[in-house]
Amino acid sequence: MRLRLTPRDDSYYEMFTDFANNLVIASRLLVELISEDADRETIAEKMRECEQAGDERTHAIMRRLNESFVTPFDREDIYRLTSSLDDVMDSMDAAVDFIGLYQLDRLPKGIIDQVGILERAAELTAEAMPRLRSMRNLSGYWVEINRLENQADHVYRRLLAHLFSGRYDALTVLKLKDVVDQLEAAADAFEHVANTVESIAVKES
Amino acid sequence: MRLRLTPRDDSYYEMFTDFANNLVIASRLLVELISEDADRETIAEKMRECEQAGDERTHAIMRRLNESFVTPFDREDIYRLTSSLDDVMDSMDAAVDFIGLYQLDRLPKGIIDQVGILERAAELTAEAMPRLRSMRNLSGYWVEINRLENQADHVYRRLLAHLFSGRYDALTVLKLKDVVDQLEAAADAFEHVANTVESIAVKES
Amino acid sequence: MRLRLTPRDDSYYEMFTDFANNLVIASRLLVELISEDADRETIAEKMRECEQAGDERTHAIMRRLNESFVTPFDREDIYRLTSSLDDVMDSMDAAVDFIGLYQLDRLPKGIIDQVGILERAAELTAEAMPRLRSMRNLSGYWVEINRLENQADHVYRRLLAHLFSGRYDALTVLKLKDVVDQLEAAADAFEHVANTVESIAVKES
Repeated sequence: MRLRLTPRDDSYYEMFTDFANNLVIASRLLVELISEDADRETIAEKMRECEQAGDERTHAIMRRLNESFVTPFDREDIYRLTSSLDDVMDSMDAAVDFIGLYQLDRLPKGIIDQVGILERAAELTAEAMPRLRSMRNLSGYWVEINRLENQADHVYRRLLAHLFSGRYDALTVLKLKDVVDQLEAAADAFEHVANTVESIAVKES
Repeated sequence: MRLRLTPRDDSYYEMFTDFANNLVIASRLLVELISEDADRETIAEKMRECEQAGDERTHAIMRRLNESFVTPFDREDIYRLTSSLDDVMDSMDAAVDFIGLYQLDRLPKGIIDQVGILERAAELTAEAMPRLRSMRNLSGYWVEINRLENQADHVYRRLLAHLFSGRYDALTVLKLKDVVDQLEAAADAFEHVANTVESIAVKES
Repeated sequence: MRLRLTPRDDSYYEMFTDFANNLVIASRLLVELISEDADRETIAEKMRECEQAGDERTHAIMRRLNESFVTPFDREDIYRLTSSLDDVMDSMDAAVDFIGLYQLDRLPKGIIDQVGILERAAELTAEAMPRLRSMRNLSGYWVEINRLENQADHVYRRLLAHLFSGRYDALTVLKLKDVVDQLEAAADAFEHVANTVESIAVKES
C-alpha cells in the first residue's frame, strides 16, 4: 500500500470543465441571438441565467480554495484561471445586454464570424479543461486559441472598417461598436485563459 | 518573555488605511462636484492634490517594501493591492479631468447614483483596511463591494441607454461617455481591491 | 576550480534586450509614418514584420522558460515582463493599423508628441534591459518612464480636447480617438514594463 500525502483533489478539474461547458452554452445563445427571427427576450433571459451560473461557479471555486490545504496547482493560478473564465462570460453577457439596451434590430453580417469564433473557442476550452489533470496534450489547445484570436482580430478590424464606411450615422456606430468591442474582448479573454493554462503547464513542466 | 522572530510591521496596515481614507475624500469631492453651483475649479484643484497624495502613498509603500525583509503578506499581494487602490484614484481623477476638459456644464442625473456608489465603496474599503491585521470579518466587506459593483453596473447601463436615447448629439454622447466610463472603471477597481483582499485572505486561511 | 550549481543563463537578458530593440525600431516606424509624404504602405508592411518578430520573440522566451530548470528570476515575472513588452508592440501595431484602416490622411499635430514620447520610452527600455543582469542602476529607468507616462497623459488629454473642439465631425473624432487611444495604451504598457522591472528589483533586493 502506498501512502498518499497529498489527497487527490479532482474537484477543480471538474469545476473548470463545468465552467467552460457553461461558456459553450452561452456562445451558442449568442449564435442563436443574431440569427433572424430570434426570440431575443427569451435568449437574453437564458443568457442572464448562464451569467448567474458562472458567478456561482466562480464563488464555488473560491470557497473550495478556501477549504483546501493542498491544491493541484498554485492557488494564484487557480484564482487567475477562474477570473479569466469569468471575464469571457461577462463580455458575452454584456454584448447581449447592449443589443437589447440599444434596441439594435439590424446587426452587420461580420458579427456572425465573430460569434462563430467564440463558439469554437468555447468548445476548445471545454475540451482542454479535463486535460489539466494530466497536463498532457495541452499545447495544441493554446496554439489553436492563439490562432483563433488572430482570426478574431482580423474579423474585428474588418467590422470596424465597415462601421466607419459611411453607411451608419455616428450614434449607430457608437452603439454597434459597443457590441463588437465586447465580442472582441471575449475573444481576448479566451486567449488569457489559454495563456494561464500555458503558464501553469510551464511551471509544472 | 517571548522572543519575536518576525518584527511586527504594522506600518502596512496604516498605509493601506491611509490610502483608502484618501479615496473617501476623493469620492466626496466627486459628490460635491456634480452638485449644482459647485465651485468646479476649487474642487478640481483639491482632486489633483488627492491624486498626488495617492501617488506619494504608492511610492511610500513601494519604498517600505524595498526596505522590509519580512512582510505581513506576500510582496506581490502588497504590490497588487497598492496598484488597485491607485487605479481607483486614477479613474476618479480622470472623471473630474474630463468634466473640466470637455466643459460639461450639465451632467445626466444618473451620475449622482454612480458617484454615490463610489462614496459608499470608498467608506467600506477604508473600514476594511485595518482589519487586514487580524484577517477577520473581511468576507462581509468583499461580498458588499461585489454587490455594489453589480449595482454600479446596473446604473451604468441605464446611463448608457439614456445617453443614446436621442436627447444628445453624437459628440456630446462621446464626451459624457468618457466621464461615465471612468466612474464605472473606478467601481471595477474597487472590486479589484476587494478581490485582492479576498485572495490574500484565501492564502492566509 | 569552482563548481557552478546554477548555470548562468544569460539568454534571458539577451532576449529581453532584443525584444526592446525591436520596440525601438517600431517606435521609429511610427515617427516616420506620421511625417508628411510618408510611404504609408511600406511602413505598414515593415510594422507588420516588427510585430511578427515580436511574436516570435515572445514564443522563444516561453519555450526557453519551458526548458530551463533554473531561471534568473521568478518564472512568473519573466512571463509578465514578456507580456508587457508584447502589449507595447500590439498597441503600436494597432495604431498603424487604424491609420490605414480608416484612411486617415491628416492627423492632428499632437500625435507627433505622443509618438516622440514612445520613441524615448523604447530607447530607455532597450538601455535598461541589459542592466537586469546586475540589477543595478535601474531605478533611474523606472522613475524616468513614470515621468514620461505622466507627460504622455498630459499630451493625450490635450489631444482629446482638440478632437472635441468642434473642428471634427463625430465619425472623424471616433476614428482619430482609436489611434490616439492605442498610442496612449502603448505609453501605459511601457509603464507596466517598468513596474514589472521595479517589482523584480524589489524582490531581489
